[in-house]
Parts: sequence; structure tokens; C-alpha cells
Amino acid sequence: MTNKTESIGSVKQEYLTFAEGSEGLKLDSGLSLGPITLSYETYGELNAEKSNAILVEHALSGDAHAAGFHEGDKDPGWWDVLIGPNKALDTNKYFVICPNVIGGCKGSTGPASINPKTNKHYGLDFPVITIADMVRAQKHLIDHLGIKKLLCVIGGSMGGMQVLQWVATYPKHVQSAIPIATTLKHSPQQIAFDEVGRQAVMADPAWEEGNYYGKAKPERGLAVARMIGHITYMSDKSMEEKFSRRLKAQDYSFKFSTDFEVEGYLRYRGDNFVRRFDANSYLYLTKAMDYFDLSGSKLIPKDKDIDIRFLVISFKSDWLYPSYQSQEIARQLKLRGQDATYCEINSTYGHDAFLLEVEEETHLIKHFIKKTFQG
Amino acid sequence: MTNKTESIGSVKQEYLTFAEGSEGLKLDSGLSLGPITLSYETYGELNAEKSNAILVEHALSGDAHAAGFHEGDKDPGWWDVLIGPNKALDTNKYFVICPNVIGGCKGSTGPASINPKTNKHYGLDFPVITIADMVRAQKHLIDHLGIKKLLCVIGGSMGGMQVLQWVATYPKHVQSAIPIATTLKHSPQQIAFDEVGRQAVMADPAWEEGNYYGKAKPERGLAVARMIGHITYMSDKSMEEKFSRRLKAQDYSFKFSTDFEVEGYLRYRGDNFVRRFDANSYLYLTKAMDYFDLSGSKLIPKDKDIDIRFLVISFKSDWLYPSYQSQEIARQLKLRGQDATYCEINSTYGHDAFLLEVEEETHLIKHFIKKTFQG
Repeated sequence: MTNKTESIGSVKQEYLTFAEGSEGLKLDSGLSLGPITLSYETYGELNAEKSNAILVEHALSGDAHAAGFHEGDKDPGWWDVLIGPNKALDTNKYFVICPNVIGGCKGSTGPASINPKTNKHYGLDFPVITIADMVRAQKHLIDHLGIKKLLCVIGGSMGGMQVLQWVATYPKHVQSAIPIATTLKHSPQQIAFDEVGRQAVMADPAWEEGNYYGKAKPERGLAVARMIGHITYMSDKSMEEKFSRRLKAQDYSFKFSTDFEVEGYLRYRGDNFVRRFDANSYLYLTKAMDYFDLSGSKLIPKDKDIDIRFLVISFKSDWLYPSYQSQEIARQLKLRGQDATYCEINSTYGHDAFLLEVEEETHLIKHFIKKTFQG
Repeated sequence: MTNKTESIGSVKQEYLTFAEGSEGLKLDSGLSLGPITLSYETYGELNAEKSNAILVEHALSGDAHAAGFHEGDKDPGWWDVLIGPNKALDTNKYFVICPNVIGGCKGSTGPASINPKTNKHYGLDFPVITIADMVRAQKHLIDHLGIKKLLCVIGGSMGGMQVLQWVATYPKHVQSAIPIATTLKHSPQQIAFDEVGRQAVMADPAWEEGNYYGKAKPERGLAVARMIGHITYMSDKSMEEKFSRRLKAQDYSFKFSTDFEVEGYLRYRGDNFVRRFDANSYLYLTKAMDYFDLSGSKLIPKDKDIDIRFLVISFKSDWLYPSYQSQEIARQLKLRGQDATYCEINSTYGHDAFLLEVEEETHLIKHFIKKTFQG
């Protein structure tokens, strides 16, 4: 075995279905959901003691395909740079699990799924879910895999919220946690950006109150929402470095077509997204993030005896999830006497940095998990 | 005369029409526009020497109604806090002029105007204009008023771009200039926000390639564009102070209705805007801003003998037009040997601060203009 990083290679998605009884999974809204299917992928081998399991949580537009290649695909999973042999999440040593969230549209039960009560797509009959609901569903998967305690739960952005929610809901089942570029609660600015994205989707007449399945999709609305998102994922500086004021043609068009490269990029990313993402899932997942609030003592209640190691990571140029929010996570953890390390990585990539700052993240995460695993 | 500030009181809009010949006004695009009407307001009296004229330039959603009250109105003009007896732009001493830009929708010729060639609304037949075209049109108004040299040109945001354009195009006609919360050129991030707003408008089927006059307007698209704008005009901190995570009802709705106060505010501002603004004007004015570029020596060419006093103002929490852009204006001016003062006002209001930080602005502007006037 060398230290050279490799790809985990060919991977396949798996599925677990549960909550098939009349009860279903009880949700924060008071409603129930069932049956629930979770799509997930695993990389590496679970050891005999089942002590080497790492749960990876994905962000808004992510999915269960975090690493390796699906048959016929040119591009690997969304966090392949961090997951694989000798990588930050070293699949020679650890068993890595990545589930798609409920409410999503990549194999797990969501608004695009068939409602068994009506035999039609759920649409807006799908219950509004919370980050805690996502995590409750994931607990079924972890139980199914026979894992009593997760070596680590790790994720960025909405994935980081799930990490914190695992700590709050199942503290005895978590040995260490790495929340990245995330927050204890959405600020009004974060809620505002999400709300504008939702309004863009719902303003599209093709949305039809969520009943667009089998018909024209609200593509233009969702593309606008995604374009707004992309601006917030980058930084002023990274946009300057990537695009500056470069034009697509020789001179201004004096039309409302695409003049600047940055405009072309945003349109491309918007158009691309609508082909792979369900507009209703966009509504449900952003709402779950807006509802998320583990501020104050809600993360670690005062009376609880909790022993979890924490590595909190933020990025200097991330203005969507600014460093002060990660510092507040670290502050709350220290106030509750937890073993917490905070690192701000000096990046110009903005919020996207958690997907791009491979070298620094690898260094921090690899060392932290190794130390946790060795005890 | 006391030093107590007062309202200028009742005011009326005036109109000037020019470029009525077959030629029209030659535009940067190579096209011509004519006839052109400018709506404008004036406050105070022009002195015999015509040496006390201050030109006020408005921002994207502004208009000629900068101060005082229109008959029957409860609210004064958009910069009434700075314009009036004993205010920053003291109408006891100065003659203040504020025109609506061409391309706008508040009385000056724009895409909602009637095209004399077709007797229909221009719509997208209106030529794409630039900030320089706006200023060229304003020069006709200044000539009409018999003013050879403006004591001061002042404005924030898009208004600040017009200020800089006056300096670049008509340096001999400007004695002093106050560009506020503005830039020498739109950055890719600023272009990106504008482009998403335009995409939101154009994604609305009611937009109909700009031919919606007399029919249903693209209200939902324009409302989304305005909501995006509003987020960028405030700061993370001012939103926290104003809204925090306060709910409109007792608890989460678990629906896609308005949960948070910040959502209600944005929807209100979006809905309000569509009643008073033309969607096509939104496209034209944002495009003009994106095209604006007086970077490098384009503001003050090396070979020109120019003697203008400058006061450059920015606001600490303004992330849409960050202070580094105003510092770059000041740097370019000093490189060209100009008499330039730069001030950053310590505000939490974000970009909106130029409309709200009355006390500090009054102090800086009043003193600066007084000194310029006394020579």
C-alpha cells in the first residue's frame, strides 16, 4: 500500500426502505411519512467492531454519489477529492456512508416520489421536513448497517447542519463531528436568499402549485433560483479571478443577450441544474435549512453528558456562511465543555471552498479522524 | 433665516424635450434616439452668475422627485433628508436640479414611451443606452438652463456612475463631484446580480419580449428581481438587526407561505415595486450599469488639463459597492493629480446607507460644497 491517493473506482447506489407500517416516520411537523426509501452509497469496508464508520452528509444540490464512478460516467462523485484510498476519508481504513436526504430527488423519498395513498407524485402533498427529520431517517440506515456509534459525521453547508443535528439528536451515537462552512441557524440574509429562490420557482407558471410531473417543468424559475445560488457560492474575488469583465464577443452587443463571460457561466449553470434537479425538492430542502435552529443550548443541552470531538471548519471568503457563524458553533461547544477545534481556511473560493480546498481540508480532516480512531 | 432644516415644501415636475430633428441624439450603440423628453425637478433659485447649480443624479429605482412633496403625497422625494433649506444641499444657497434618466420610466423617454415611428410603446425597440448616453441627454438640460459650469454633481450608486461620467465627458463643465457608494466599473459579481434580475424578468411569460404594454405585466418576474436587489442593498448585520429570525405567526407554518418577517418584507417590497416601475426600464438601466467602465485612465485622460474637486464617499457595510471600489476611484484621481478626498462612513446599513446615513453625509457634503462655492 502506497500513500498515493487513488479513486475508489466503480461504485453502485444501494437502497433501504423502512417505515412501511401504517405509522410511518413521525416528523417535526406532526405529520408522518412512510414508506421511506433512502438511496446511499458506501465506500471501504466496515471492520468487525463496526467502529470505523464515517457518515458523509451532502449539501443542497448533492446526493448519495459522493465518490468513485458510476458505470459509464466521466465525472466522479461530488466529494471524490476527499474520499478514497489514502485520501482525507481513507477508504483503506474507514467505511464511508453517504445517504441522499429525504425531500431530495436522487433516489431517496421526496416530492417527486409516488405517494402510495394516491399513486401519484407527492408534489406539495409531501410533508414539509426539517434537518432533524432527515437525520431521523438516516438513523434507520445506520441501525440497518448495525453501527452503534459513528466514528465521524462530516459535511459542509446543509451537510454541516445535518452533522450538528446528529450531535443534538443522537449524541451517544457519534464519536466525532466535522461541521464545515455551516451555521447553528440560518440568518435573515440566508433565509432571504432561499426565499427569493423559492419565489423564482413558484413564479414560474409551469410550477402549477407543484403539480408539474409528466408535464413541462418550471425550468426557467428553477434556473433563476440556481443562478442566485451560484453567486452566493462564489466570492467577489473568485468571480474577479475567474471572469473579470471579459466579454464573450469582441464588443458589447447592445442587446439583452449574453455580453459577459460571467453571464454565460450563470446561464449555463442554471440550465444544467434544471436537468438534474427537481424544483419541488429545491423548495423543501431550502425550507428545511431556513427552519434549522440549534442556537444557544439546543446543540448541547446543559444537562446532557456528552463526549464528542469536534473539528469546526470555515473559509475566509465564504460570505454565505461567514466565519463568525462557525466561530459561534465553536463558542457554544466550548461553553458546554466540549473538545472542539476551530480552523478558518484562508481561501478565495467563497462558500464553494468546502468542495475545492482539498489540500488544507485533507490535512485537517485526516489527522483529526486518525486521532479519533486511535482513541 | 435659522439653521433649522425644513422641507422645501410643494414641488412640481418639469419637462424638457429636445433632439426633435431627424438626427436625434447619437448614442454609444451607434443608434440615435429622438425626440427625447427629460422630466426634472429643481429646488432653490439659480443665482445671477448661474454659479450655484448642483446636479443630483438618481440611482436605479430613483426618479426626478428628489425632494419636497407632490400635491397630495404623504411621502417626500427620495433624498429629501439631504435637500432643502439648511440641509446638506441647502436650497437657501444652491439651485438643485434632479433629472430622471433616459431609459427610465418616471417621465423621461424610456422603453415605455411611445415610439413616434410606430406610434406604439418602444418596448425592446428602445435602443440599449449607456451611462454616457444618460449624461449626454442631461447636458441638454443644463444648457437649456443656461448653466455653463455645475457647482457640483452628486449621486449614489448608479447616480455615482453618472457623476463620474460627467467628469469624464464634460470636465470643463464640472467644478466639483461627489460620487457616493459607487464604482469605476461593475465587477463580475455586480454584473451577475444584475443578470439574474434580468433573467427573472425575462423568464416571466408575461414579459413577452418586452411587448406587455396594455396587457398583463411581468409582475412576478420583476418582483423577484427587486427582492434580489433588496438583499444586496442591505447588510447581513442590518438584516439581523431589523428582522433576526422573528416569525410572522407563533410557529413554523410547515407550508411554503411566509414564515419569517424577512420573507414578508421582501415580498412586500417586491410587490410594491412592480406597481411603480417598468420591467423593461429595469433591463435597460441594469444593462447601462453593467456596461459602465471608466477604469484606468478613462476617468481622467492623461493629456487633459482638469481641475475638479472630488469628495468620494463609501460605507463600511456596503458589500454591493464595497469600499475598495471607492478607494480605487480615489486612487485613480490622485494618480492624475486631482484634488480628491475619500471618506468611508462607518455604517451597518449596507448599500442603502447612502439614503440613510444623513448626519455624517450632511456634515461631509455641506462643508465640501461650501468650500467649493467660496472658491
